[in-house]
Amino acid sequence: MYVSLRDVAARSGVSFQTASKVLNGVPGVVAPETRERILRAAAELGYVPNAMARGLVRRASVTIGVVADEISDLAISQFVLAAQRAAAVRGHAALVSTVNANNEAGLAVRKLLEYRVDGILAAAPTLENDAGLGAALRGTVPVVSIHRVHDGGVPTVGSDHTLTGLLAARHLLRLGHTRIGTIAGPAGRQVVKSRMRGFRAALDEAGHPLDERRVVEAGWSHDGGHTAVHQLLDSDPTVTAVFVHNDVMAVGALKALHERGRKVPLDCSLVSCDDLSFAAYLVPPLTTIRIPFQETGERAATLLLDRIGGQPIPARNLLPVELVVRESTGPPPDQ
Amino acid sequence: MYVSLRDVAARSGVSFQTASKVLNGVPGVVAPETRERILRAAAELGYVPNAMARGLVRRASVTIGVVADEISDLAISQFVLAAQRAAAVRGHAALVSTVNANNEAGLAVRKLLEYRVDGILAAAPTLENDAGLGAALRGTVPVVSIHRVHDGGVPTVGSDHTLTGLLAARHLLRLGHTRIGTIAGPAGRQVVKSRMRGFRAALDEAGHPLDERRVVEAGWSHDGGHTAVHQLLDSDPTVTAVFVHNDVMAVGALKALHERGRKVPLDCSLVSCDDLSFAAYLVPPLTTIRIPFQETGERAATLLLDRIGGQPIPARNLLPVELVVRESTGPPPDQ
Repeated sequence: MYVSLRDVAARSGVSFQTASKVLNGVPGVVAPETRERILRAAAELGYVPNAMARGLVRRASVTIGVVADEISDLAISQFVLAAQRAAAVRGHAALVSTVNANNEAGLAVRKLLEYRVDGILAAAPTLENDAGLGAALRGTVPVVSIHRVHDGGVPTVGSDHTLTGLLAARHLLRLGHTRIGTIAGPAGRQVVKSRMRGFRAALDEAGHPLDERRVVEAGWSHDGGHTAVHQLLDSDPTVTAVFVHNDVMAVGALKALHERGRKVPLDCSLVSCDDLSFAAYLVPPLTTIRIPFQETGERAATLLLDRIGGQPIPARNLLPVELVVRESTGPPPDQ
Repeated sequence: MYVSLRDVAARSGVSFQTASKVLNGVPGVVAPETRERILRAAAELGYVPNAMARGLVRRASVTIGVVADEISDLAISQFVLAAQRAAAVRGHAALVSTVNANNEAGLAVRKLLEYRVDGILAAAPTLENDAGLGAALRGTVPVVSIHRVHDGGVPTVGSDHTLTGLLAARHLLRLGHTRIGTIAGPAGRQVVKSRMRGFRAALDEAGHPLDERRVVEAGWSHDGGHTAVHQLLDSDPTVTAVFVHNDVMAVGALKALHERGRKVPLDCSLVSCDDLSFAAYLVPPLTTIRIPFQETGERAATLLLDRIGGQPIPARNLLPVELVVRESTGPPPDQ
C-alpha cells in the first residue's frame, strides 16, 4: 500500500509539515541538506506524491472531467481519446465519468465536482435534453460541450450538421437522382433536425421536395439502419438513392439493400455521415460526409483549458465537414 | 468556482474542523442543531463535498484507475466501459489514463497512484512486453490485468486464445477444407502466439499441417487485413479458407477477397475472432469466435474490488469463447 508522508517525515527526521512542503512542491525556505534528506527518504521508501493533498495545498487540481454517454460508440470514444491526449499535452489528467439515460446524469457531474476537477467536457449527446445534466453543468467550473446542453449557457464545439444534410442531398442531385429517401436518426435529436433541415432545403431548392413516404426514422445502430431500409423500400420501391444519418446505420443499410437484391450503387446509391475508419473498407466503400471527431475532441479540450486559464472563448465553435466520394454513389439506373 | 469549506463554516458560525467533520462524514458527536445549520449553509452556498479531502480524512479514496492503451479500439473500449459500470455499481469512480507506446507507460501508472487510487485495471495489451509498465504495476496497490504483464506478478482475466485458434481450425476442417490460410496479428503478441498454437495443433491433428506460405502477419486494422489477403492469395492462390485474427481485419479481408473476385463463402470461407457488433451485419455476416469483452471488463473490475477488499483472487481467470456460425463459411468449392 501507499507509503505515507508521515513515514517519510519519520525516516528523514523532520516534521510532517516540512516533509509535506518539500514533497508537495510548496514554495518556502527549507535548508538544502534537509530537502535532500527528505527526497532521499521518499525515494528509498517508494513514496508516490499525493495529487489530492497537493491539490488541497495548492487549491487547484490538475484534472479535467469528461462526462461521456457511450464510450463504446466509436464517435464518442474518438472524441474522448483525442480530448484526453490534448489535455495530457498540457499536463492535465482526465477523469472520465460515464452516464446513460438510466442513471442520474446530474450525479455523474457532481461526482466529478467532488474530485475538484478544473473543468468539464460534456460528451453525452443522448442527454442533450436532460434538464438535470444541464443544470449540473452550469455554474461551478468551466464547461465545454460537444452538443447542445438543456437550457444552454455552455460553450459548444461541433460540426455544421445543416451543411452535412445539404452536401449529401446536393451530391445525389448532381448525380441525377430525384427519388431520394433518407434513414434519419431519432427525431428528437438536434443533429437529426439540423441534418434534415439542410437535406430538405437542398431538395426544395432543386425542385424535388422530400416525399414524406421516403423518410424513415431509426436508432443509431446497425440494426436500426437494416430495418429502416426494408421499411423505406416497402414504402416506396422506386427510390434510387438513400441518405443515411451515420456510418454505423449504413452497415445495416448495405446489408438490407443486398437482401433486397439492390446493387449499390447500380440500383441504389447510398451516402452516409461520419467517415469512421471502416467506411473505406466496406463493399462498396462508402461515400460519406466526414465529421471531424478527433479535431472536435482536441478543440474542445483546448478551449476548456483556455477557459480554465481565464481566457474568454466563443460560445459556439463550428468545425468544417466535407464530402468524401467513394463507390457507394453513382448515377440513377436507367428507367 | 468551488465554494470552500471555510465559506460554509463562516456562514454557519462553526469552526472549520466542525464543518469538515460533518460534511466529510467523519463520525463524531456534533449537536443536531449545529449539524442541521452546517448542512443548510452548504446547500444554500452550493457546496460540493471534496472527494480528495474526504479521501485524506478517511485515508481511502473511492477510485479505481484504468490504464488503457487504445480507447478508440472497440474491444478495449467495451472492456473499459464494462469495468467502469461494474465499479460504479459498487460505488467506485474510475480514473482512466491512456497510454501508448510513445509515452512512458510507467508514468501513466504513477499518475494514477498520485491520485491514490485503490487499485488499477490494466488494459494495455500492446504494452504487454513493456518492462516499465510491468514494474510500475507491481507493488503499490492491487492490480488486475486483461493481458500478460512483463515479468508477471499480476492476476489476469482473459479468454482462452489457444481454444480460439483450435475452434476456428476445427470448424473449417469439419466443412472439408484442407488448404487453409491465416491472417495473424503481430507475431510478438501473446494472443497471436496462443491462437497460432491452437490453430496449428488442430491442423496437425487432422493431418493437414499448416503450410508456412499460408501464414501472413498483419496489423490489427482494416488495412492490415486487406493487404494481407492480397499477399496470401499471391503466395498461394489455392487457399479455400482463411482464419483472420480479428473482426476489424476481417472487414479489410472481405474487401480484398471481393477485389480478387472470390465469392465468400462459395470460393473462399472466412472465419474471424471477436464478434464485434458489426460482425452480424457485414455481407456476408461473419462466422467468428466470440470473445467476451464485456464479461472480461466486469470480471476484472469485480476481482479487483474483491482484492481491494482483502479477499484472495485467482492468479489466472479464463473466460469461455464460443464459435458463432454465420454465413462467411461453407464447404470448399468443387475442384
